[in-house]
Amino acid sequence: MTISPDQLLCSLRWRYAIKQFDPSRMIPGNIWDALEESLVLTPSSFGLQPWKFIVVADPSLRMKLLSESWKQPQVTEASHYVVLTARTDLTSDDIEAWIERLSEVQGTDIGTLGPLKGMIEGFAQAMSQEERRAWNVRQVYIALGQLMASAAALGIDACPMEGISASGYDHVLGLAGGSHTTVVACALGYRAVSDKYAQAPKARFERSQVIKHV
Amino acid sequence: MTISPDQLLCSLRWRYAIKQFDPSRMIPGNIWDALEESLVLTPSSFGLQPWKFIVVADPSLRMKLLSESWKQPQVTEASHYVVLTARTDLTSDDIEAWIERLSEVQGTDIGTLGPLKGMIEGFAQAMSQEERRAWNVRQVYIALGQLMASAAALGIDACPMEGISASGYDHVLGLAGGSHTTVVACALGYRAVSDKYAQAPKARFERSQVIKHV
Repeated sequence: MTISPDQLLCSLRWRYAIKQFDPSRMIPGNIWDALEESLVLTPSSFGLQPWKFIVVADPSLRMKLLSESWKQPQVTEASHYVVLTARTDLTSDDIEAWIERLSEVQGTDIGTLGPLKGMIEGFAQAMSQEERRAWNVRQVYIALGQLMASAAALGIDACPMEGISASGYDHVLGLAGGSHTTVVACALGYRAVSDKYAQAPKARFERSQVIKHV
Repeated sequence: MTISPDQLLCSLRWRYAIKQFDPSRMIPGNIWDALEESLVLTPSSFGLQPWKFIVVADPSLRMKLLSESWKQPQVTEASHYVVLTARTDLTSDDIEAWIERLSEVQGTDIGTLGPLKGMIEGFAQAMSQEERRAWNVRQVYIALGQLMASAAALGIDACPMEGISASGYDHVLGLAGGSHTTVVACALGYRAVSDKYAQAPKARFERSQVIKHV
């Protein structure tokens, strides 16, 4: 079931950050379902999944988010719009919840997971709350990377949205003061035929400038 | 050339963080080449690619990195080992270099890229050096996400390595005090048949716990 190197590179070269989506084209249900599952399956440190992904369909919410996104049209024109959020902390309760879930899924006695739990707790306690939050935020970027690569493989267009007001999003989505905070968003759908960026040659530094062999 | 939703999920479910690689199995050249290219093609904010990826083949360096990695055997047993580094800052020179590259690849007169350059510079200058560094580090996690998803699609096993001493790695790789710093590493190759973790059920929270629809 693996793909060929050519097929991988073809999909990664085909993708680009869409500026103009075709608002009339919706992602079919079975494909969207796979993209949600690719978010769920994202790897994270210790498996902690310190995130929540909010799929915003409500047009009035999309309009409110538009105002918090420098009016970038992808927010309202893309078929689907996901806001990726991170936990603001990593508490003992969060770790406990993960250990319980691990025990349940793997059928392992929770007592045997004590050493793992202790290791994660030691790791978390060695950081300040601000460091734990930054660590959670970094994990969310793994999810963004996996989501964009998965979308490309399925032939779905995407645009990562970093130019947004995280606090504005938190306010619109009712997250302010809660356990999670907005990190980044991603618009997904189909490029408009008129998006001239589709024709621009893909620009990256030379491989020799970014890859070093030692 | 797109793949089916089932094929995507099959590869994402097949992957796990390998604990024990088969040290006798090497990734073929054409497949490794595609994985390097997937790193090169990673999307980043404004396209800035604030990173360098170091592929460590030298066995003596791998041994030294092992000591900076809690002796996790993946460092020396995996076929390939990549250290993902981020720029420690984002200077006007860095931005200038990117604008020049963009002009070269896209055949655009550099003068017309002035507004884009001004926007990126305004963005960078609004942050402290520590914030620019943290921003670069987050971009590197997109590369980690794309690398792991790409490897899974090609049937290559991987293990993200966060439990490493970044300063120790910087010292071993001669990065200390330079323009880039170690963020995270990734071991790639083939799982050993004896790796018992291959049989463990994949554990994630329920989809309803991490995905919310509004």
